[in-house]
Amino acid sequence: MKFVIIGGDAAGMSAASKAKRVDKYVDVVVLEKTFDVSYSACGMPYNIADPDRLIDDLIVRTPEVFREEQGIDLRLGHEVLRIDPKEKMIEGRLNDRDDFQIKYDKLLIATGARARKLTIPGHDAPGVLVLRSLQDGRRLKSYIEEHEVRSALIIGSGYIGLEMAEALHDRDIKVFLTDIRTELAPWMPHEMANLIKEELESKGAELLLGKEICELRSVDGSIEVIFRDSELKVDLVLVGVGVEPCSELASEAGLELGPYRSIAVDEYLHTSNPDIFAAGDCSDAFHAITGVRVWIPLALRANRAGWAAGENIFSDSVLLPGVLGTSVFKVMDYEVARTGFSLGEAAIAGFDPVEELIRSRSKAHGHPNNQFVYVHLVADRNSRRLLGANIVGKEGAAHRIDALAVALHTGMTVDAFFNCDLAYAPPFSPVWDPMLTAARQLQKKIAFPEKKPTFEDEKNLLLL
Amino acid sequence: MKFVIIGGDAAGMSAASKAKRVDKYVDVVVLEKTFDVSYSACGMPYNIADPDRLIDDLIVRTPEVFREEQGIDLRLGHEVLRIDPKEKMIEGRLNDRDDFQIKYDKLLIATGARARKLTIPGHDAPGVLVLRSLQDGRRLKSYIEEHEVRSALIIGSGYIGLEMAEALHDRDIKVFLTDIRTELAPWMPHEMANLIKEELESKGAELLLGKEICELRSVDGSIEVIFRDSELKVDLVLVGVGVEPCSELASEAGLELGPYRSIAVDEYLHTSNPDIFAAGDCSDAFHAITGVRVWIPLALRANRAGWAAGENIFSDSVLLPGVLGTSVFKVMDYEVARTGFSLGEAAIAGFDPVEELIRSRSKAHGHPNNQFVYVHLVADRNSRRLLGANIVGKEGAAHRIDALAVALHTGMTVDAFFNCDLAYAPPFSPVWDPMLTAARQLQKKIAFPEKKPTFEDEKNLLLL
Repeated sequence: MKFVIIGGDAAGMSAASKAKRVDKYVDVVVLEKTFDVSYSACGMPYNIADPDRLIDDLIVRTPEVFREEQGIDLRLGHEVLRIDPKEKMIEGRLNDRDDFQIKYDKLLIATGARARKLTIPGHDAPGVLVLRSLQDGRRLKSYIEEHEVRSALIIGSGYIGLEMAEALHDRDIKVFLTDIRTELAPWMPHEMANLIKEELESKGAELLLGKEICELRSVDGSIEVIFRDSELKVDLVLVGVGVEPCSELASEAGLELGPYRSIAVDEYLHTSNPDIFAAGDCSDAFHAITGVRVWIPLALRANRAGWAAGENIFSDSVLLPGVLGTSVFKVMDYEVARTGFSLGEAAIAGFDPVEELIRSRSKAHGHPNNQFVYVHLVADRNSRRLLGANIVGKEGAAHRIDALAVALHTGMTVDAFFNCDLAYAPPFSPVWDPMLTAARQLQKKIAFPEKKPTFEDEKNLLLL
Repeated sequence: MKFVIIGGDAAGMSAASKAKRVDKYVDVVVLEKTFDVSYSACGMPYNIADPDRLIDDLIVRTPEVFREEQGIDLRLGHEVLRIDPKEKMIEGRLNDRDDFQIKYDKLLIATGARARKLTIPGHDAPGVLVLRSLQDGRRLKSYIEEHEVRSALIIGSGYIGLEMAEALHDRDIKVFLTDIRTELAPWMPHEMANLIKEELESKGAELLLGKEICELRSVDGSIEVIFRDSELKVDLVLVGVGVEPCSELASEAGLELGPYRSIAVDEYLHTSNPDIFAAGDCSDAFHAITGVRVWIPLALRANRAGWAAGENIFSDSVLLPGVLGTSVFKVMDYEVARTGFSLGEAAIAGFDPVEELIRSRSKAHGHPNNQFVYVHLVADRNSRRLLGANIVGKEGAAHRIDALAVALHTGMTVDAFFNCDLAYAPPFSPVWDPMLTAARQLQKKIAFPEKKPTFEDEKNLLLL
């Protein structure tokens, strides 16, 4: 069998490795249009923050290892231009020069997502950069160093924008962050999102929210940023306005598309063509709560879907149930984590959502270095099922969210969650973990809708 | 209604506060034999570690607050000696002098647990101390200071013993730790327990395992410890050989007892007498996996049971489903967490348990300050249900365990857990969280029983 994979990033290489482990005699060909495979893309902001590390430190496994130790026919510089599902063949171009054709028995599309581009004048001026591929990372890091960047404007307040605000701040670069939206992290309650805003500002970042950019002008190595109502001059502009799925090959081959023009796949990663699979950021998934198709490009799902596809090309043995969009990122000293639906998303999904936000502590009463922990829960008023959660804090937010993710996967009610036997020791939480306090307050909120949000303190926890 | 509570610690005061909030006209009398209520007992090792903090900093709420702000009739120095269920009356002694009698409509026994005592000669010699009550904490902390303690022997390697090893080490006291058992943390696989042993030894603690003590002798302000085969001289002996429930009052009143002579209660905290409740470390609980009665005295359950009893004296409205014994403690730089059954406990409970231990990382490949994280899972071979977990590591062990606790509460299989959408960002975990890696390796172990434990590295995670 010949298994051809388009794209050599997380999903593609996971699939290739898995297929070879299932059957070492299968012929696995990976076509990667760049010259980088198997790197930690999510690690780029942290690498860029550190002048002493090479961006190539993020490479997890070299092409040689895939080729020599795993027997994968990994071809770099191979851009695929067309899929012919009838002939079971793909066509492409090598190093922008030579055409190539390859027949396949099973095909995996793992083309990922690309950074969305601005469309304003000057969007491609020198010093206007994006961060998506390792090559983008190289370009950005060397630009910072070669141009002695002292100030930067980040356009967009998604994960990348916020993580890069920290990274650039760590490089002693004055950070401006702008978004056309008036609110950071709009999936959270205002009080919670405001923590992130205050944290950024306290570290010297300047936020320009609700502002529209009209033009970027490259002038003498600087960039003039023309807002509708003001101007700004910086050494670097980083555009982080989201990503879009690389689904054109699939679309042109007549495959069905899902939300946001991602490639529609079933629970076994089949596209609408029985011999073509898709996995990773180019493809969609089912939401674990509603079963509805969603496009939430995140690293774990990409690795998992690739891994599953590498098994399922032989026979449909790995079913992937669904995603919650569980994620976490770090902004300066804050951990910001979420899983499941926001209040708005829950309402759109047809629930009658009720939310509660509480403030508790990262450690027991009286324990040194106690930090605030904020927990926001969303549940359905009628079924009492938990639908989503946000946790923000200077410690213990990142890992706590997984307990709520597991709860969401099992359809747990807020009542069942409140009854969970969670861990306690003074260095790690109050006796009632902040998640339990939040669950309790949400129970009360469901019973008494007029109830105000409670910022609980350890002293008040007997008031549960 | 007159609600009388015996014991003013976590369970008792939670019940008193709750009952008053449900109905401010209910007459709540709390009889506490000591002069301390509402303190963070679990915080004592950390407080003792810090010479600049007073032990009384651990008091969360003073008697005055309970009396004046909450209207609770809190009586200190009141030791209860007898319960007369027929007359619905209790008898006791005030300040070791005066007898008292009180009638009740509903009674809560929240007498807690006491430190188990050694029975060897010299067990009560000066300088041989325990740590259970706040008064014990005062005594221990002032003993350390007044006697300029430079060396200490801890007898027993339970939570208290291990936490106090850290606390005494922080006070520059040479720590010896002995146990009649040959292994620390015997609920874990040997390789995992060994991490704790090595950590203690690397910090200068001396472990004397598998040793039996014959006698303690107080000589000139020091204590001579006579082992069967050797001797040791230290300035202080701390006995931490476990606790036992204070259930004599209940037993003498004819109430049914549960495991380890704890007081048997149903899911509403009723004892076998309809007007008498029990909550906290003196009482038992149902195990969330098997429904079997267990006695696992831990702080969250004590608070929760008190809280529930304070509601249920009016009508049975709060049902507590069961416990997992989820717990965490800190030993020097290690976080040590567990939930559910060990391999041995699972076998005793009638399962056909299979276990897996993996080593992964606390952060993504290439991220600075990456630490090892060890995850041990136990599942039932036939049903594939997760039964227990241990996590040990220098960061991210404490909060991760809660995700597994939630999974255990819902009866999740290892397969469903492996499919959970958990959070990922480079500062917090590898793409595949160590818990997911462990679940995957356990799946393989079930399929291929001869499989060796895998110490996975981020580099190998594509090998999932």
